[in-house]
Amino acid sequence: MSQLSQKHLLGIKNLTEKDIELIYETAKTFKDVINRPIKKVPSLRDITIANVFFENSTRTRLSFELAEKRLSADVVNFSSSNSSVKKGETLLDTVNNILAMKVDMVVMRHSSPGAPHFLSKHIDANIVNAGDGTHEHPTQALLDTFSILEKHGTLQGVKVAIIGDILHSRVAISNIFALKKMGAEVMVCGPNTLLPKYISSLGVKVELDVMKALHWCDVANVLRIQLERQQIKYFPSLREYSLYYGINRRMLDQLDKEITIMHPGPINRGVELNSDVADSDHAIILDQVENGVAVRMSVLYLLAGLHN
Amino acid sequence: MSQLSQKHLLGIKNLTEKDIELIYETAKTFKDVINRPIKKVPSLRDITIANVFFENSTRTRLSFELAEKRLSADVVNFSSSNSSVKKGETLLDTVNNILAMKVDMVVMRHSSPGAPHFLSKHIDANIVNAGDGTHEHPTQALLDTFSILEKHGTLQGVKVAIIGDILHSRVAISNIFALKKMGAEVMVCGPNTLLPKYISSLGVKVELDVMKALHWCDVANVLRIQLERQQIKYFPSLREYSLYYGINRRMLDQLDKEITIMHPGPINRGVELNSDVADSDHAIILDQVENGVAVRMSVLYLLAGLHN
Amino acid sequence: MSQLSQKHLLGIKNLTEKDIELIYETAKTFKDVINRPIKKVPSLRDITIANVFFENSTRTRLSFELAEKRLSADVVNFSSSNSSVKKGETLLDTVNNILAMKVDMVVMRHSSPGAPHFLSKHIDANIVNAGDGTHEHPTQALLDTFSILEKHGTLQGVKVAIIGDILHSRVAISNIFALKKMGAEVMVCGPNTLLPKYISSLGVKVELDVMKALHWCDVANVLRIQLERQQIKYFPSLREYSLYYGINRRMLDQLDKEITIMHPGPINRGVELNSDVADSDHAIILDQVENGVAVRMSVLYLLAGLHN
Repeated sequence: MSQLSQKHLLGIKNLTEKDIELIYETAKTFKDVINRPIKKVPSLRDITIANVFFENSTRTRLSFELAEKRLSADVVNFSSSNSSVKKGETLLDTVNNILAMKVDMVVMRHSSPGAPHFLSKHIDANIVNAGDGTHEHPTQALLDTFSILEKHGTLQGVKVAIIGDILHSRVAISNIFALKKMGAEVMVCGPNTLLPKYISSLGVKVELDVMKALHWCDVANVLRIQLERQQIKYFPSLREYSLYYGINRRMLDQLDKEITIMHPGPINRGVELNSDVADSDHAIILDQVENGVAVRMSVLYLLAGLHN
Repeated sequence: MSQLSQKHLLGIKNLTEKDIELIYETAKTFKDVINRPIKKVPSLRDITIANVFFENSTRTRLSFELAEKRLSADVVNFSSSNSSVKKGETLLDTVNNILAMKVDMVVMRHSSPGAPHFLSKHIDANIVNAGDGTHEHPTQALLDTFSILEKHGTLQGVKVAIIGDILHSRVAISNIFALKKMGAEVMVCGPNTLLPKYISSLGVKVELDVMKALHWCDVANVLRIQLERQQIKYFPSLREYSLYYGINRRMLDQLDKEITIMHPGPINRGVELNSDVADSDHAIILDQVENGVAVRMSVLYLLAGLHN
Repeated sequence: MSQLSQKHLLGIKNLTEKDIELIYETAKTFKDVINRPIKKVPSLRDITIANVFFENSTRTRLSFELAEKRLSADVVNFSSSNSSVKKGETLLDTVNNILAMKVDMVVMRHSSPGAPHFLSKHIDANIVNAGDGTHEHPTQALLDTFSILEKHGTLQGVKVAIIGDILHSRVAISNIFALKKMGAEVMVCGPNTLLPKYISSLGVKVELDVMKALHWCDVANVLRIQLERQQIKYFPSLREYSLYYGINRRMLDQLDKEITIMHPGPINRGVELNSDVADSDHAIILDQVENGVAVRMSVLYLLAGLHN
């Protein structure tokens, strides 16, 4: 009976709390499914999904592909590295061509913020944003918050510190939207140069000192320092970052409580997280990965309009 | 009962009119299939097809892959960018290796004209030519002519102008063969430097003035200017090409009839076609894409010898 | 009832003779399967297999992928060229991430000797080594020896000469282990610079003269000269190699018996094998390829623990 209020999943911003709760609830069912010996359901048997990745992301593409296959959808992969995009075709023409081949849903990653929003105004098929530039990465936020909910029993009042490069992170932005909507308290923590100027307007606490952030929070969601962005001048060096913001076991032992450690992956061990933290009982990093498949199954299933 | 006269689809040149009619007829059935909620048929359930692409073509590969999946075939993809071709293996050895793994049909794109013809003399499996150099691209011609047939009710006597870079275009050559066989009148139109010397021997009219070609024709099949060939000296510049051969709405409005606009894609908007043409009711460009899946299903199905 | 003694297939070294016999026996059944009109069995219907290739190998990847599909497994492909490996993630983190998505088996190729052994100590899923650096390539050795068994009726006492670049060849090492375990006599033959110093410690004869090796053997397994390693200084030039070690028909005609010619592919025709040998009745090169699918089905099936 219940339905999402949206035809597309473009970002967390557009979702209602009820949407998010419905996604969690459905994801719980699918998590049971993928932990059974028979990991498949026939739900999307007559649905064709194209994974259209204009930016490489093996991890996210694999998670979506497995989610689609568990739902028995037909899957085709399209990546820009060998595509007609290079040949000067517009984004809309590329996607319209794929849809003319009778594709029902498009999972899209694109380097330009807003690319899926633009598309959604021109095409009929359901779109799932799998990351658009520095804008949003809604399924990551849904799997992150689902993992917190699973661990802490609620999101209401849970204190979550997002630590690292907030400025370049679509994961941070989508997480902030999801956490705020679901009643969590949010703090961002990182060097000044990696915090966007508008950040306090999002209703989050800002903290420069990582130790203070750890003292405050119940959950630390530690973002990846993007090695590939090292050429940027105002960036602290990796060594400096690791020295001032890297989290190790000794720091956690100084706290008067157990906190949950999250990371969207891939981890730079020894930079933002030491192995004694990443491999400890505090970390739910692999649960996040597992929940990713369940949450993506949930989103695809609900958007396909088959929920009743 | 009816069967193709050929074991392979190497080019339009080898097909009889009866073959082509059978392909159209079967494609019509499959077009109905892919427009149903259940888009699949079990026809090729026990057939394994390898898409062997020695040249990149996401669009064509995707169309074949979807056609194969709609027919319930098992599909494996092989592309040269990560292949043993680089390691000095001969084409025949590469394909024989794939076939030894019990592959039944090979869909092949290759940069060398005649590569699939060469193979067809040495292997048992059915071969579908998905484009061989500047030689032929038979499924494109079949989907193009099928789209004209669908729009105009017949091919007999329909006047088709193929406009653009005829010299480098396998699409043009295959279209000419198919149109002539099916009784259409054909004109080619483009700058002198982009018309092959032998062109009039194919029984087509030649026209340098695009406005005259538009006045003459019922259907304009506008080819893509291949941006990647811009280094060639005798080529008109893109700007010149667009000025003298680009088609815009104002030009169509000067005609005393409605003509159909086709394009094999990807479109260079503003070069060979203006958006006011590409997005108009004259254009059947996305129908061509949709028909591509149906026509490829038809070809694969008929070659697999399952028609009765 | 019978089971492999191992949870993983890391190398031939770890297998017992009974393991190898069981793999042969099961492969025989699967060879029948892939030669039926219906080439599939539902054996691994609820198993998800990830092909994780950190080194390109279209041929081996395709053979595994077809083996997996014939067994009705769900298949996902992961290759390093578009992976998070570049982003500084550890091998163990990468694989743990894939496994957290509920993948049951990992087929892995890696450029580092021992990479799959390292993994096997840290993860639960079954691992199949599809080649690790210059170390082992166990499924190649199993398919090679299976092909000899099929041709000669036994391995016991069969004289096998492995000819070529032994130094850089995981195929040679795995073949030596498998042949010795199954009672064959083994000789290696190649230029001094391409024979590892420790080779005689493996209990094999060493021969520098290829004609003497051919006179001695029942089976010549001719390795590929890796063109991509031509920069190495001490290497004989391709021309020299071909002159002194290349095998042609005239050489075979001088023997007083028929010998069997094998090659793991891809062949450099005119270098290690002349076409008059590669295409002759002596050669069982394409049988090796066909047996590769059957042997890989056998290994995957047995490791999945479904044999009874």
